[in-house]
Amino acid sequence: MKEQSVRDLTVGHQVLGFFLVKHKELEWFRDRTRGQFLTLVLMDRTGEILARVWEEAPDLAQTFAEGDVVKIQGQVEEYRDRRQITVERLRLAQPGEYALEDFLPSTEREVGAMWRMLERAIEELKNPHLQALCRAVFGDEEFLDHFRRAPAARRVHHAYLGGLLEHVAELLVMARPLCRLYPDIDRDLLTAGILLHDIGKVRELTHEREFTYSDAGRLVGHVLLSDEMLMAHLAPLDDFPEELALRLRHMVLSHHGRYEWGSPRRPKTLEACALHYLDNLVAQVNRFQQLISRRPDRTKPWTEYDTLLRRYLYAGREELSVEEEGQAE
Amino acid sequence: MKEQSVRDLTVGHQVLGFFLVKHKELEWFRDRTRGQFLTLVLMDRTGEILARVWEEAPDLAQTFAEGDVVKIQGQVEEYRDRRQITVERLRLAQPGEYALEDFLPSTEREVGAMWRMLERAIEELKNPHLQALCRAVFGDEEFLDHFRRAPAARRVHHAYLGGLLEHVAELLVMARPLCRLYPDIDRDLLTAGILLHDIGKVRELTHEREFTYSDAGRLVGHVLLSDEMLMAHLAPLDDFPEELALRLRHMVLSHHGRYEWGSPRRPKTLEACALHYLDNLVAQVNRFQQLISRRPDRTKPWTEYDTLLRRYLYAGREELSVEEEGQAE
Amino acid sequence: MKEQSVRDLTVGHQVLGFFLVKHKELEWFRDRTRGQFLTLVLMDRTGEILARVWEEAPDLAQTFAEGDVVKIQGQVEEYRDRRQITVERLRLAQPGEYALEDFLPSTEREVGAMWRMLERAIEELKNPHLQALCRAVFGDEEFLDHFRRAPAARRVHHAYLGGLLEHVAELLVMARPLCRLYPDIDRDLLTAGILLHDIGKVRELTHEREFTYSDAGRLVGHVLLSDEMLMAHLAPLDDFPEELALRLRHMVLSHHGRYEWGSPRRPKTLEACALHYLDNLVAQVNRFQQLISRRPDRTKPWTEYDTLLRRYLYAGREELSVEEEGQAE
Amino acid sequence: MKEQSVRDLTVGHQVLGFFLVKHKELEWFRDRTRGQFLTLVLMDRTGEILARVWEEAPDLAQTFAEGDVVKIQGQVEEYRDRRQITVERLRLAQPGEYALEDFLPSTEREVGAMWRMLERAIEELKNPHLQALCRAVFGDEEFLDHFRRAPAARRVHHAYLGGLLEHVAELLVMARPLCRLYPDIDRDLLTAGILLHDIGKVRELTHEREFTYSDAGRLVGHVLLSDEMLMAHLAPLDDFPEELALRLRHMVLSHHGRYEWGSPRRPKTLEACALHYLDNLVAQVNRFQQLISRRPDRTKPWTEYDTLLRRYLYAGREELSVEEEGQAE
Amino acid sequence: MKEQSVRDLTVGHQVLGFFLVKHKELEWFRDRTRGQFLTLVLMDRTGEILARVWEEAPDLAQTFAEGDVVKIQGQVEEYRDRRQITVERLRLAQPGEYALEDFLPSTEREVGAMWRMLERAIEELKNPHLQALCRAVFGDEEFLDHFRRAPAARRVHHAYLGGLLEHVAELLVMARPLCRLYPDIDRDLLTAGILLHDIGKVRELTHEREFTYSDAGRLVGHVLLSDEMLMAHLAPLDDFPEELALRLRHMVLSHHGRYEWGSPRRPKTLEACALHYLDNLVAQVNRFQQLISRRPDRTKPWTEYDTLLRRYLYAGREELSVEEEGQAE
Amino acid sequence: MKEQSVRDLTVGHQVLGFFLVKHKELEWFRDRTRGQFLTLVLMDRTGEILARVWEEAPDLAQTFAEGDVVKIQGQVEEYRDRRQITVERLRLAQPGEYALEDFLPSTEREVGAMWRMLERAIEELKNPHLQALCRAVFGDEEFLDHFRRAPAARRVHHAYLGGLLEHVAELLVMARPLCRLYPDIDRDLLTAGILLHDIGKVRELTHEREFTYSDAGRLVGHVLLSDEMLMAHLAPLDDFPEELALRLRHMVLSHHGRYEWGSPRRPKTLEACALHYLDNLVAQVNRFQQLISRRPDRTKPWTEYDTLLRRYLYAGREELSVEEEGQAE
Repeated sequence: MKEQSVRDLTVGHQVLGFFLVKHKELEWFRDRTRGQFLTLVLMDRTGEILARVWEEAPDLAQTFAEGDVVKIQGQVEEYRDRRQITVERLRLAQPGEYALEDFLPSTEREVGAMWRMLERAIEELKNPHLQALCRAVFGDEEFLDHFRRAPAARRVHHAYLGGLLEHVAELLVMARPLCRLYPDIDRDLLTAGILLHDIGKVRELTHEREFTYSDAGRLVGHVLLSDEMLMAHLAPLDDFPEELALRLRHMVLSHHGRYEWGSPRRPKTLEACALHYLDNLVAQVNRFQQLISRRPDRTKPWTEYDTLLRRYLYAGREELSVEEEGQAE
Repeated sequence: MKEQSVRDLTVGHQVLGFFLVKHKELEWFRDRTRGQFLTLVLMDRTGEILARVWEEAPDLAQTFAEGDVVKIQGQVEEYRDRRQITVERLRLAQPGEYALEDFLPSTEREVGAMWRMLERAIEELKNPHLQALCRAVFGDEEFLDHFRRAPAARRVHHAYLGGLLEHVAELLVMARPLCRLYPDIDRDLLTAGILLHDIGKVRELTHEREFTYSDAGRLVGHVLLSDEMLMAHLAPLDDFPEELALRLRHMVLSHHGRYEWGSPRRPKTLEACALHYLDNLVAQVNRFQQLISRRPDRTKPWTEYDTLLRRYLYAGREELSVEEEGQAE
Repeated sequence: MKEQSVRDLTVGHQVLGFFLVKHKELEWFRDRTRGQFLTLVLMDRTGEILARVWEEAPDLAQTFAEGDVVKIQGQVEEYRDRRQITVERLRLAQPGEYALEDFLPSTEREVGAMWRMLERAIEELKNPHLQALCRAVFGDEEFLDHFRRAPAARRVHHAYLGGLLEHVAELLVMARPLCRLYPDIDRDLLTAGILLHDIGKVRELTHEREFTYSDAGRLVGHVLLSDEMLMAHLAPLDDFPEELALRLRHMVLSHHGRYEWGSPRRPKTLEACALHYLDNLVAQVNRFQQLISRRPDRTKPWTEYDTLLRRYLYAGREELSVEEEGQAE
Repeated sequence: MKEQSVRDLTVGHQVLGFFLVKHKELEWFRDRTRGQFLTLVLMDRTGEILARVWEEAPDLAQTFAEGDVVKIQGQVEEYRDRRQITVERLRLAQPGEYALEDFLPSTEREVGAMWRMLERAIEELKNPHLQALCRAVFGDEEFLDHFRRAPAARRVHHAYLGGLLEHVAELLVMARPLCRLYPDIDRDLLTAGILLHDIGKVRELTHEREFTYSDAGRLVGHVLLSDEMLMAHLAPLDDFPEELALRLRHMVLSHHGRYEWGSPRRPKTLEACALHYLDNLVAQVNRFQQLISRRPDRTKPWTEYDTLLRRYLYAGREELSVEEEGQAE
Repeated sequence: MKEQSVRDLTVGHQVLGFFLVKHKELEWFRDRTRGQFLTLVLMDRTGEILARVWEEAPDLAQTFAEGDVVKIQGQVEEYRDRRQITVERLRLAQPGEYALEDFLPSTEREVGAMWRMLERAIEELKNPHLQALCRAVFGDEEFLDHFRRAPAARRVHHAYLGGLLEHVAELLVMARPLCRLYPDIDRDLLTAGILLHDIGKVRELTHEREFTYSDAGRLVGHVLLSDEMLMAHLAPLDDFPEELALRLRHMVLSHHGRYEWGSPRRPKTLEACALHYLDNLVAQVNRFQQLISRRPDRTKPWTEYDTLLRRYLYAGREELSVEEEGQAE
Repeated sequence: MKEQSVRDLTVGHQVLGFFLVKHKELEWFRDRTRGQFLTLVLMDRTGEILARVWEEAPDLAQTFAEGDVVKIQGQVEEYRDRRQITVERLRLAQPGEYALEDFLPSTEREVGAMWRMLERAIEELKNPHLQALCRAVFGDEEFLDHFRRAPAARRVHHAYLGGLLEHVAELLVMARPLCRLYPDIDRDLLTAGILLHDIGKVRELTHEREFTYSDAGRLVGHVLLSDEMLMAHLAPLDDFPEELALRLRHMVLSHHGRYEWGSPRRPKTLEACALHYLDNLVAQVNRFQQLISRRPDRTKPWTEYDTLLRRYLYAGREELSVEEEGQAE
């Protein structure tokens, strides 16, 4: 783990550590006789910070590119009410010096435990066809390596490394009591739908140094990429029942629920209905939780305006929890 | 329990039993010299059936009204591909002869068990203010009598006696794992929101002999009626924290989630978000389950077109479940 | 070709010929002592007509089913301002006595000529990958047999046998001048997109005795079925360029243009844009042309209200064409 | 009244007077050796202006906060086509030196006269229940003090001190001829609805130093706050007819007219219909009038683009009025 | 005025009077040996009623057509809970025997008084150009004859003879206090806009025997027809100021307010804003008033479901007015 | 043609040539003792570039205005990753020194050839009424001069000088094969509709020095302006058939297709349908072609985000065309 994280840098202190260069730009001093300085946006998994190199910027700028990790020594100052690093020394980091995970936001849950939950869900499938299919999909090591690291979305919810795995694990947790309440739901089918509905996300988003859409992500989209991968894995399973394939495919294709949300189908089976509304529940609660807990100014009761939700969220003025009081007794 | 239910009447057999008169109409024979006959729609909790009285209809028609329970003797015949009772004898039922529950659809779960789940949820509240409030609301016997019998909606979901209680109980079940996944959710607040968000439904719908909207239901609506009842119970609780009241009220007012669904507010807190999406999940799965399991012709893989969902639902051609196979081994 | 078509039957005349039974129902006379009569809806490719059998209906009803072709002898009468056949004789038709095409609406263009236009378009493809792909798809005889007979839609446009082929041929005709106006459009790619975008319709709609959706049509839909078929044919083409496959797939997935029209993607390339708007143009003009030319009462200047377009269409009061005048001179 | 108002400051002249500090920020000179300067946004009821303090800014910045009123001496200059004050002297104003009304936009009508119109409307109510209710609401001095000063909205219409009172008075004026045209409208009920529909605005908006939403404003909203206040005042009125309360409450809850405008109910009574469309008329005309008369550059015939209305408004090129001509004769 | 109106016919009594034939149809007795009977829908301005001629129907049917006025003698009976006339005698009415106004719904206000209000509004115009224009438009006797009789709409509001005139007069009444409240509104321009905005309705709707759209009504619409008539009258007025013409035309073109309501422009001037919202107010209040006061069963507190408003309207259970009580004292 | 165009200016070289001044602004140096400098945006038909005058800017600024053409001598430098001209000399251009066409984007097709296509289309009209009308409209030299230079839109499609003519010519090309496919389309009527539907654009947009809306463009709009011009030309044609005029007018009024796109009518005739969808096809393909071919960075496979289309467009990574390969053989 990195020693100094962006979130903890405080004005007036020294900084010495590794950061990912998100943005790099040479700018002219207004007095052009003074030449150019360098403006950087540095990031790690805890946030972003502005940095400036005032001396010998043009030469230094040649030695690294956006996306590189650099080692920085400097001073944290304040500029227009925000923190800014005045960089004194900067060099390109060596591959062995850092772990890329430190520079992108990651799940706070344990990846191993979540993965074991998925494995157990596959093992518990009673329908041999669905089990064979899921084993085939999750038996592909290259896929699995991506799947366990991928975020579930670029921005809105679970937008961090491991977010996809976390999202699927949460769905498995929530599906269990729902199946008990509604025994008409075919539990194996719902489980398989949960496991497979988002597999195309490993191809929709690249998540090496930042989360962006691939060409296939924009031109085809994860819903259809999931469908394609599903069909590729179904092809060699000769005796997979046709109707079962249709129902499973329908779940993948309808899990966004509404045409206007880019869903090519709307749910028409009980399991597709359950998958869509579970997905929606878990994604939205995660989204609210992230917006509230990561709001820039935690002293304020309201978040900033969220342009996608078109509203401010309320974090609250006072602690709600009365458990402490209880414990005090 | 009634002996003969509408669902089980078969063509060619005798019928003798009690039914609720949903509709009653005297019609002229086309050959007017033959006078008038009587067309009835009879119902019980399992369905509706057409019935006709060909003899002495005008006199008989005087002896009962729509909404009454009558005792019928007759013959089940077929008319235009549907069953129809040719009534031979008919008389008004006496109050002690029947239980009204037999004539309206009811929950299939046990009311006592569901109610105990609510009681336990109230007991387990750690926040004394929320607990005091919930005890006040659910301590009102007259309200409670309505609450335990009310349907959760007129048509769409949980539209049967006890449906409201069932709906709330299901939310409590689903909220538990969600709170474990997201500890930032204030569990007491979410629980109180679940318990209180729909209390206005006991005033929105009348559920004596059919489910219809009351004047207050149409002019004010259950969201605002719940809010009104909540405030009435808050008024005497002097030290109830103001912010807590605001957050609770916000959950009630935003639980429909979107303006276009008649929600005066949209969720702005984590608990309001959780309540809305839990509510949506449980209501929609119930709706799909009802539409599929109660479709008129269970031999068909597709339901009839649902004009609200604007789609056909797929019940499936083959049994999915392979558990039986497994058990057979 | 059939001798007497529904469109030409006139009140007061005899009818003797073959018709498809669209609907069949035994009804009681109101005076039940008179027993039952038989109500039929008969159809051929020119329209539908009501028919009734008054004598020995129950026995006759055993001898044929909905969807069968029957031979009828009877009298055309008028009932409530509409034509109705009083059937005197009726028997099931023998397989060799009729051609099914006579009983479903069909394209009025020559299927052979349209098919040659498609063949030529494939031959003229300069891109060898696209040509190989199209040859593979259209080289499948079983598929081809369906493709040449399929309607393009259940109701809205080109809703007749051969309609799908006609629709594709029209697109090829319109694409040519557009490619001349906009040379940036890759002509081969647009041609391939036109040929392949609707191939899934052969699996979406059944068109044996009436046009209805298959299970796969409802649960997956023709856009995704086309995509599935495209990928199945791409799989064995090892050196098919990846980007080309992506662009082609994008055209198929975006040809409906808007999310709310069930399109999982919206056009993002020049060729996808061209395909969508060409498709829209040709489909809508066909739709208007059908609604106007097949309106029930051709003496009226306005069609009946179309609930999908939510408007009346204007056929006009006077002949517009002045060519005749010109020729008369 | 203030002597120098923002609207009248002209480049090249001295300024000496009181202004409210809307925004305050210390900025570094680019040549950091020069230290920091102070950027201010000053406002009064006629507008806003930028100001800068170049000398000893950090010390001065300690002496006042955003929201304070300060006394300024300086020079009006031009910077990037806009006016800017170079501040020479600045001190915190003493409470007795200014009237807060001078620093927020206010109604241009006479508050006393408008208030008397409301009083008369209450007196003229013939229905004793409605009169008692209105007297109770408007007899609360603390409420009244707020009500007479509150704006009717944060931005869109009547967004100035006294705007709420003005809005209600305008509705009373317009309701009178409408009631004459449509005698089926219950005049007392409409009058009471006008008086009470927006009372919650005194709790939705704070209007001390700027117009912003309170927590209750965002979490509950003025429609529901009005409803809450209405019910609190109804509670002690024992014999208030139930149906009358329902109709009045319905008017409050439906006065926004449409779900998508945050209205929990849509109008279902004649009086609710009248209230909504009167409200809409008066609010929109006020909005247009404000946008046109307060447009920044009054020499231009078009306003700037209004992002809420999504259009430019036309003020006109030439004076329309010909009355002057008439008077000149 | 007619002696017997449809509204007042009661079961068991004789009827003798004139009615308009809205619908006419010969039907076979089910026992075809009995031949045909005649089913009629008769109407006058107060409503519609079913009528049947059992004897010698085919001959009688030759003597009149739909749209004719006939004189009827017969008996009012009850059939399926509704009134029905059994006709004993029927003959075509002579032109001099009836006034067409008696058979179509008409305004209940005095046409002469309303027309004088329009004349006065024109006289009071101070702008000579606007006055000249309005005099030209309303000086056309043929137009005026239509204008005074036309309904303002086919169904929704003011859908009766004289409704257009009534609608315009109501707008004039409501505009006056609005102009006093907002002196920035150019009163002459608003008045002219009110007078002219709907003149195209005389060509959009035919109102001879029922209210239906003309070809121009459907293909062009009243907004554009008004615009056309306005421009035709502007053409000869040489010195009419260009900007004034533009502003007036803009009011006509934007008076529907929203694109989705078929408005080619949205209001961009103060007067266009005022016209649209006044128009909306008066039209909607009239619509509610009609739906409530003309509901079929006046004993019920709710109207039937209105499919355009998508709601039930509440007429109320008890009389609201307490004036009577007051008078009783 | 201009010698140096904006598109070709490269960093490090001299610039000497004529440019249109799109924007001009005097700015203060931060060190105010240094006075003011001048910031310009210069443009020609190939693009825009930033320019700065550091010396004697205030005096120079007096000598020219925005919209003027100036002659510039200077140096192309780089500033914040973009090109910028440091101006050394600048003077106002003389009228004879330049052609205005060089400074606004223009069609790349030959205007003469396109115009001859229109003339031929008019000549080939067989309907004498339509031909007379078109001759009248396009016989007006002043109109014609505008028509041949006008853009078809301010921004979205064909937004360059000659764009309107090009758009109409493209429609004529595309209409021909459509009329062959659908002979029910009246070819003359469609041709006339194509020629006339956008004539109002010459009054909607001014295109002297930049493309902006006129007052009439904003208050009335090109659809209605086209309608007005059409009616003005119809007025003197006494025997023009009324129905033909109605159909033609309907085409103009409905060519935007949907209410929400500002269309006062929706297509109700076959020709109006054809016109709308042809118009849409040609406009959208042009829009995509412009966005892709004029994207700022042609090395990137994706365009920048288009806020109107709300998507990125894909230009592609590799050349698709394989014709070159073919030619190489």
